[in-house]
Amino acid sequence: LAEKKVLIVYAHQSAGSFSAAAKEAAVEVLKSKDCSVEVSDLYAMKFKATATAEDITGEVKNPEHFRYAEETKLAWDEGRLSADITEEQRKLQEADLVIYQFPLYWFTVPAILKGWFDRVLTLGFAYTKEKRYSNGIFKKTKALLSFTTGSQETMFSPTGINGDMNVTLWPLQNGILHYCGFQVLAPQIFWAPADAAPEGRSAMLAAWNTRLQGLLDEKPLFFTPMDYFDCESFQLKPENVEKCVKEFGPTAGTHCGKPLPPNNQMKAGV
Amino acid sequence: LAEKKVLIVYAHQSAGSFSAAAKEAAVEVLKSKDCSVEVSDLYAMKFKATATAEDITGEVKNPEHFRYAEETKLAWDEGRLSADITEEQRKLQEADLVIYQFPLYWFTVPAILKGWFDRVLTLGFAYTKEKRYSNGIFKKTKALLSFTTGSQETMFSPTGINGDMNVTLWPLQNGILHYCGFQVLAPQIFWAPADAAPEGRSAMLAAWNTRLQGLLDEKPLFFTPMDYFDCESFQLKPENVEKCVKEFGPTAGTHCGKPLPPNNQMKAGV
Repeated sequence: LAEKKVLIVYAHQSAGSFSAAAKEAAVEVLKSKDCSVEVSDLYAMKFKATATAEDITGEVKNPEHFRYAEETKLAWDEGRLSADITEEQRKLQEADLVIYQFPLYWFTVPAILKGWFDRVLTLGFAYTKEKRYSNGIFKKTKALLSFTTGSQETMFSPTGINGDMNVTLWPLQNGILHYCGFQVLAPQIFWAPADAAPEGRSAMLAAWNTRLQGLLDEKPLFFTPMDYFDCESFQLKPENVEKCVKEFGPTAGTHCGKPLPPNNQMKAGV
Repeated sequence: LAEKKVLIVYAHQSAGSFSAAAKEAAVEVLKSKDCSVEVSDLYAMKFKATATAEDITGEVKNPEHFRYAEETKLAWDEGRLSADITEEQRKLQEADLVIYQFPLYWFTVPAILKGWFDRVLTLGFAYTKEKRYSNGIFKKTKALLSFTTGSQETMFSPTGINGDMNVTLWPLQNGILHYCGFQVLAPQIFWAPADAAPEGRSAMLAAWNTRLQGLLDEKPLFFTPMDYFDCESFQLKPENVEKCVKEFGPTAGTHCGKPLPPNNQMKAGV
């Protein structure tokens, strides 16, 4: 049976919100496509956001200089991570697709979702020095940011005061998701639903509903493959700079001093 | 008396860390320059990271659809924000300079510090629709990100696998700090101190020590002024696009489709 597993990591305080409606739409459509769907409702779970020694059961190795990544790596090796982290890691490991549903807070995820990334994506479990980016541990898994904004779309353009949305998405999509190997699907952006009329909000949900029908077959965004980079400096090999610029275009982050390719963090195949 | 007030918002779990040493250096040097220095030690304070209805004393206006920004705006108006938020707002309001000292977690601040931004920078207190960016509420206050990385500097270049550090800094420096009006000083970046030899770490701290001597006289980074943008769409007025590109250069976010100016989020006057 080719049943697909979906994890929705959901970060809104209120069941009456647009974010809740977007999450519900995903649950319904994906179940109707024979997916099994789990939801991590972070506020309802009172998910712990802060990365502390309490995330480890038993002794830490170096209490005088506690280093979170190294200590949790060791705890993960020895099965001594706290139960809430272990449970989220189980869900993540089983998933074929992960949808993060949240309101954009200060140009990025709310703290409770940042805490999920900080605590669940443990060194060893989610990445190692060798297994990152296109060699990453989750390279068979798809991931997608689905979020609402407070600002209108015009403000997030390359001439807008908030700046190009591709720039704002880079640290999240490249720095977290692709870093762990995830195939990053184009983000689902709901532009300022709070300022829209009810029919505007309905139209946004209808478009999401339509997209959800084919979501699992979508192609991911392009990120420059690991083997284009020198394996020591992690800079593009000189012979690959022009190749990258010509063949794929640079990306928002690895832009090689060229103009940023429009929408490279927003649409696949650009 | 022209005594300056400095707030250090510090987010590391361990007093034995490089981040702690960087924080201590700032406290010592700035006190020696006759500044008064307050430190918000977020982990020691067990600072609450998540934005919830518990941040409001008394009734919320709309429990069926709790909207954090609107509810906390109202609570701020009426003096009903929780004591921990009010105390941080007092420190922020009194400060001439704010230093954020943290380890970079997943290309941005750790969740506990994101929670400080989410909860302390209340609508009404820190920004309004009218008072943002160069018209922002904190335009007389300087702010600075001081952080350690896990990656080497080469990885964060325009040809590096992590992408241009200017791109990664934009959402934090423009989207949070400059959004609230802060004059953003060039970031203090400690590249991979954990991988450096002891003398390398000492040299990094010595350079920070030297910089701290003149920190309060530094010029801030350039962000395109508010009046260059149309006041409805918040896009650059057409007549200002070429002007911006020629006079100041575009910025990492508002790049106008031009190549990103090198170091515009890293050095003043570029």
